[in-house]
Amino acid sequence: MSNSDVFIIGYGITKFGEQYSTKPSSSATKAITSAIQNSKISKDSIQALYFGSLLSNSNLQSFIGAEAARECNLDVTISKIDLGNASGAGAFHQAYLAVKSGLLDCIVVLGTEKTSDYVDSSTIEEILGGTIDYQWEFEQGATLTSLYAWLTQAHMKEYKTTLEQLASVPVKNHKNGVNNPIAQYRREISLERFLNAKRISDPIGRFDPATHCDGSAAVIIASKEFVRKHSEIELKTKVVGSAQASDKLALHHRKTLTSLSATKAAAKKAYSMAKKSPEDISLAEVHDSFPIGEILAIEDLGFFPKGEGGHATTEGKTQTNSEISVNTSGGLKARGDPFGATGIAQIIEIVQQLNGEADKRQVDEAKFGLTQNVMGTGANVVVNIFSNMEDDN
Amino acid sequence: MSNSDVFIIGYGITKFGEQYSTKPSSSATKAITSAIQNSKISKDSIQALYFGSLLSNSNLQSFIGAEAARECNLDVTISKIDLGNASGAGAFHQAYLAVKSGLLDCIVVLGTEKTSDYVDSSTIEEILGGTIDYQWEFEQGATLTSLYAWLTQAHMKEYKTTLEQLASVPVKNHKNGVNNPIAQYRREISLERFLNAKRISDPIGRFDPATHCDGSAAVIIASKEFVRKHSEIELKTKVVGSAQASDKLALHHRKTLTSLSATKAAAKKAYSMAKKSPEDISLAEVHDSFPIGEILAIEDLGFFPKGEGGHATTEGKTQTNSEISVNTSGGLKARGDPFGATGIAQIIEIVQQLNGEADKRQVDEAKFGLTQNVMGTGANVVVNIFSNMEDDN
Repeated sequence: MSNSDVFIIGYGITKFGEQYSTKPSSSATKAITSAIQNSKISKDSIQALYFGSLLSNSNLQSFIGAEAARECNLDVTISKIDLGNASGAGAFHQAYLAVKSGLLDCIVVLGTEKTSDYVDSSTIEEILGGTIDYQWEFEQGATLTSLYAWLTQAHMKEYKTTLEQLASVPVKNHKNGVNNPIAQYRREISLERFLNAKRISDPIGRFDPATHCDGSAAVIIASKEFVRKHSEIELKTKVVGSAQASDKLALHHRKTLTSLSATKAAAKKAYSMAKKSPEDISLAEVHDSFPIGEILAIEDLGFFPKGEGGHATTEGKTQTNSEISVNTSGGLKARGDPFGATGIAQIIEIVQQLNGEADKRQVDEAKFGLTQNVMGTGANVVVNIFSNMEDDN
Repeated sequence: MSNSDVFIIGYGITKFGEQYSTKPSSSATKAITSAIQNSKISKDSIQALYFGSLLSNSNLQSFIGAEAARECNLDVTISKIDLGNASGAGAFHQAYLAVKSGLLDCIVVLGTEKTSDYVDSSTIEEILGGTIDYQWEFEQGATLTSLYAWLTQAHMKEYKTTLEQLASVPVKNHKNGVNNPIAQYRREISLERFLNAKRISDPIGRFDPATHCDGSAAVIIASKEFVRKHSEIELKTKVVGSAQASDKLALHHRKTLTSLSATKAAAKKAYSMAKKSPEDISLAEVHDSFPIGEILAIEDLGFFPKGEGGHATTEGKTQTNSEISVNTSGGLKARGDPFGATGIAQIIEIVQQLNGEADKRQVDEAKFGLTQNVMGTGANVVVNIFSNMEDDN
C-alpha cells in the first residue's frame, strides 16, 4: 500500500533555444524562481531539490542544482538523478517516490541544460554515447541518429510505414510549436521540405532530428497533507501515475526493434496506478527526438494498434483536438531539446493544458494527460499520468 | 506518516584496489551476484537497481548499472543517482525512500568505480571539481586536497588540534585495515611516518589522503512485507534511519569551517527517525578521505564535543571496542576509496559487524551502527543508522 496523493502545485520554464550569453545556473535559477512564484508558497516550505542535467556531467559544475539553489537562497537537500537525456523525468519520478514515502512533503524538481558555448557537438555526442551501449554501439561508430535510423527501417519494413507518414510527425509538431511562446522554433516546415531533405542517416533526413539547445524547467510537487495545510496554493494537478522501466542498452540485445519495451512496461505500470486506460488520455507529450520516436510512442502507449502509428498521424488523429492531442507543445522537435529540461517541460505542457492555461494551444475538456521521456534509444523510459480532478480515484 | 520498515537482506563486495585487467562492469557484476547469493532470494524477486558511480560520468558507459544488470541477467528498472563521490550512499538513500513509498519492495543498490587504466588523475581531479564550486574553487586552482587543508587549518587554529592528533586517525585506520580482507592496504603505517612525510598541501602530508581505487559493493534492501513473505531470507539488518542534507558547494559560502553543517543536519534527521542518540551508537563508518574528515565527523555526529575529536582519537576512544569503534573496516584510508562504491562498502561493514560476521575486526555486542558519506568538502552528506534488532522501535 502506498502513501499520500501527490500534486504539482507550481511550475516555471524559460525560453528554449541558444542562450550564448547566459551562464548555466542562471536559467535554472529563473525556472525555480518562477515555479515558486507560481505555487504561491513560501520558498522556506520547500524541503528538497531534485534535478536532472545531462551535460553537467562533463567539464562543468556537475552539481549545478546546488549553484541554482544558492542563487535562489533555497536551503534544501539536493539530489541529482542521472537518466541521461531523460534525467528530467527521472528526477521527477524519484521526487514523486520521495513524497510517496511520507518522509518529504514538498520538493522542487529541476531539469536544466546549457549546451551553447560550453560543450562542443562531439562532446555532446560522446556523452549521449553513455546512454546507449558505449562499447558495442558508440565505440563502433553508432550514434543516436544511426540507431534511430535502424529503428525507423525496422518499422518501415515490418509495417510498411512510409517516409511521408514519418515526416507528418515533425510537420504537425512544428505547426503546434508556432503557438508555444517558449519553443525554440516557432515556424512551420512543409512536408515537401522534410521529404526533399538530404538523408543524414537513411531514412532519417536532415530536418528530422530534434535539436539540442539551452533551457530550464521546474515543477514543485507536494503531498495532499501539504496542500491541505497551505490554502494559498491554487494549482493542484494530481499525479495519478508515475512509473519508470528499463530495457537493454544495446539494440542488438533487445527482443524487438518495432517497439520500445520500456515504454510499454512503464505505461502498463502508470495506467495501473492511475486506474486508467489509453482511451482515458486526452493528450500526451511524447519523446519525438526522431519521427519514429513519436510513432513508436503512440503505439506502445496504446493510443493506436501496433503498426498503425504512421497512418494515424497522416490521418490527423494526433492533431490537437482530434482523437488524441500529441505534442501540443511542439514536442522536442519544435520546442527544442535541452536534454535534462525536456522531461519537465513535457510535464509543464500537460499541467498548463489540464488547467486551461495553454492559450492558443489549448485542448478542449482534457481530464487526463500523459508524458513519456526516453533515455538513449529506449534503455529507460518514464511515463507519468496527470489529472485535473483533485479527488479522482 | 511513513510506510513499512526497510531491511538489508543481502550484501556483496569485491576486493578494493587497482584492478587493471578488469573491465568496469565485471566488478559490479561480481558484487551484485554475490549480494543476491547472500540474500538467498531469487534474482527474479528484485524489481529495481539503483546505482552510483562518480567516474562513469566521463568517457565511459555512463549507465554502467545497466551493463552489469544485463550481465547478471537481471530484468529490473535501473536508476542512477549522482552525488559525486557520495553516490553510493546517495543511491542507497533514494532506494530507501523508494521502498518507503510502498511502490517498490525489493531493490539492489550498487556502488561501483573503475579508475585504473580508464581515467587519468587529472580527469579524476576535474570530475571531483564538479563536487566543489567549479567556477570559484576548481577553476581558480583549488582541489579537494587544498580545500581540506583549509578545513584542517581552521580546526587547528580554533581548537588547537595538532598534527599528531590528526595523524592518529590514519594510524588507527591502517591498523584496522590489516584485518579487512577486501581492503586495498592491509598494513600499518607508523605515526612517525605520517608526521615526517612531506607536506603536499600544508598541513596535509603525503600519506594523509585516502587513495582512489577500483571496486564494487552492493546491498539488497526490502520492505518488511517482502521479508515476511520470503522465509529463505536469513540476514535482516534494519535501516532505522536514513537521511541526506546539503550545504553550499563553496567553502567561502559556508557559515563555519570547523563543522560540516550537512553532517549535523543529516545526523539530526537520522537520529530522530531512529529515535536514538549518539550514545546509542556502538560503531560508525565515517568519511576519512582526509584525517580532518574523521575528526569533523566524530564531532558533528555527536560522539564527542566540538573541538575534542583530536584528543579523543589520540586517547584511543575511537579504537575498536573503546567508547565508539570508528572505521573498523580501515575507513576510506586503508580500505581504499573507489568513490561510488565507498558509501555501500561503509554500509556493508556495519551490516557485517551487527551480524557478528566481521571476523578479526568484530566489535563486541554492537546494536546500532552508523555510516556517514560525504560529497566534495561537505556539499552533501548522507547518514544512515542500522540495527540488528528486527523489532526495535
